[in-house]
Amino acid sequence: MHSRTAFFVSDGTGITAETFGKAILAQFELKLRFVRLPFIDTADKAHQAVRQINHTGELEGKRPIVFTTLVNMEVLGVLQNHCKGMLLDMFGTFVNPLEQELGIKSHHRVGRFSNVSRSREYAQRIEAINYSLAHDDGQSKRDLANADVILVGVSRSGKTPTSLYLAMQYGIKAANYPLIPEDFERRQLPEALLPYRKKIFGLSIQPERLAEVRNERRPQSKYASLANCRHEVSEAEAMMRREGIRWLSTTTKSIEEIATTILQEMHLERPTF
Amino acid sequence: MHSRTAFFVSDGTGITAETFGKAILAQFELKLRFVRLPFIDTADKAHQAVRQINHTGELEGKRPIVFTTLVNMEVLGVLQNHCKGMLLDMFGTFVNPLEQELGIKSHHRVGRFSNVSRSREYAQRIEAINYSLAHDDGQSKRDLANADVILVGVSRSGKTPTSLYLAMQYGIKAANYPLIPEDFERRQLPEALLPYRKKIFGLSIQPERLAEVRNERRPQSKYASLANCRHEVSEAEAMMRREGIRWLSTTTKSIEEIATTILQEMHLERPTF
Repeated sequence: MHSRTAFFVSDGTGITAETFGKAILAQFELKLRFVRLPFIDTADKAHQAVRQINHTGELEGKRPIVFTTLVNMEVLGVLQNHCKGMLLDMFGTFVNPLEQELGIKSHHRVGRFSNVSRSREYAQRIEAINYSLAHDDGQSKRDLANADVILVGVSRSGKTPTSLYLAMQYGIKAANYPLIPEDFERRQLPEALLPYRKKIFGLSIQPERLAEVRNERRPQSKYASLANCRHEVSEAEAMMRREGIRWLSTTTKSIEEIATTILQEMHLERPTF
Repeated sequence: MHSRTAFFVSDGTGITAETFGKAILAQFELKLRFVRLPFIDTADKAHQAVRQINHTGELEGKRPIVFTTLVNMEVLGVLQNHCKGMLLDMFGTFVNPLEQELGIKSHHRVGRFSNVSRSREYAQRIEAINYSLAHDDGQSKRDLANADVILVGVSRSGKTPTSLYLAMQYGIKAANYPLIPEDFERRQLPEALLPYRKKIFGLSIQPERLAEVRNERRPQSKYASLANCRHEVSEAEAMMRREGIRWLSTTTKSIEEIATTILQEMHLERPTF
């Protein structure tokens, strides 16, 4: 049973409020219920949100935690005046000292995702998603010259989710290419990749974990057997060492951690202006 | 030319710090350079980060803005004592009043993405990504009973990026299915979808915008012509109205806004405990 509720209130999607609020609340050993209230962009909707928050507080007997990223001052005012929750104003808290430091006023414009759909950065993300999909699992050898990075590794080492994450979040064209037994026999990288050695980054994984993952897909198969996983992983790592390819082990890492490491190692995170 | 640099310093990936910091800085009309410094989890690395930040400040003649989500107090201490930037401690600012309110101490454990790779929630995300990939663009009719949502719409209305985003960020199994001229002639939804009407959500788009997007793919084709786009969109919208399918227009919306609306309308965002 949860002890109380945390609300994330935003005039936009509320994704920022939720991401950040949850990260902070994860610092406490506490079962909370999370409710996101997006698109609260009029005083009317703010009053509705306040009713929901106050009602929850009465039911639970504890005041809700309310993270807000509201930039509309009228909407924020409704919460400040009527909400009985603990109000944590994530924007105002930092915007005010920044106005001092920067010597300019903030423009109180809503939502980092509003009106981005026609921006160049957004078009780049969509293009990267399409690219990564078309170049998933070695599906296409065409156009590898346009890849920002090419992930290689044995089947189920984490290449697909990582490629899609890099494309979705960073607009990076990430192709991925499996290393298969035929490559190990030939003791050579797949032919199509040879011209692009510098763009290659490897993913490896502990054989025990790999066997677990593969067994969920194809139980009792030779493909999933620990002996085969050990063989493939050791061959793949030997090949990456031989070819001078940078790689990391994904065994205990999340997509986000893998992607962050790749961005760093491959110097893909160009400073944004 | 940028006027100064903003750093995002974290003991984890720094994704939270960067997302939130950029959202705040977007409130100012100002060209900033952004630098993320992830995995700063020892005093040594903190001293390195401080050197980089202070050096940048000297070069630019303005103190850098430094957003931190450090939970390691020793690491944070190094920045507090030696960093000449404007330090905005995003964690401490909210964790301290929350400790008061909740009556418990925070545990200062690093990173919302650390050690998640074996969690049930994480496994669900990976499974959802694989599901959405396998059910992209009507590729598979099998297993639609397991979909959390099935997106329909004409080609290039935004189904694929939205499905992948829902899977990646929320662990939602999102299939997507194109509405094609044959469906309009038969005046019926694709056969395979009929048993799952309640899970269907539609995406539409302005014909003018659709023609633009399709022309990038297949210039001068009938497929991309404004007349054809107008016809397909009006047929698709008529079908969705006839079938009682909820839908939205993606024309000016980002993936994040589309996904948030779908979560709300389809009641997919179960409160997390």
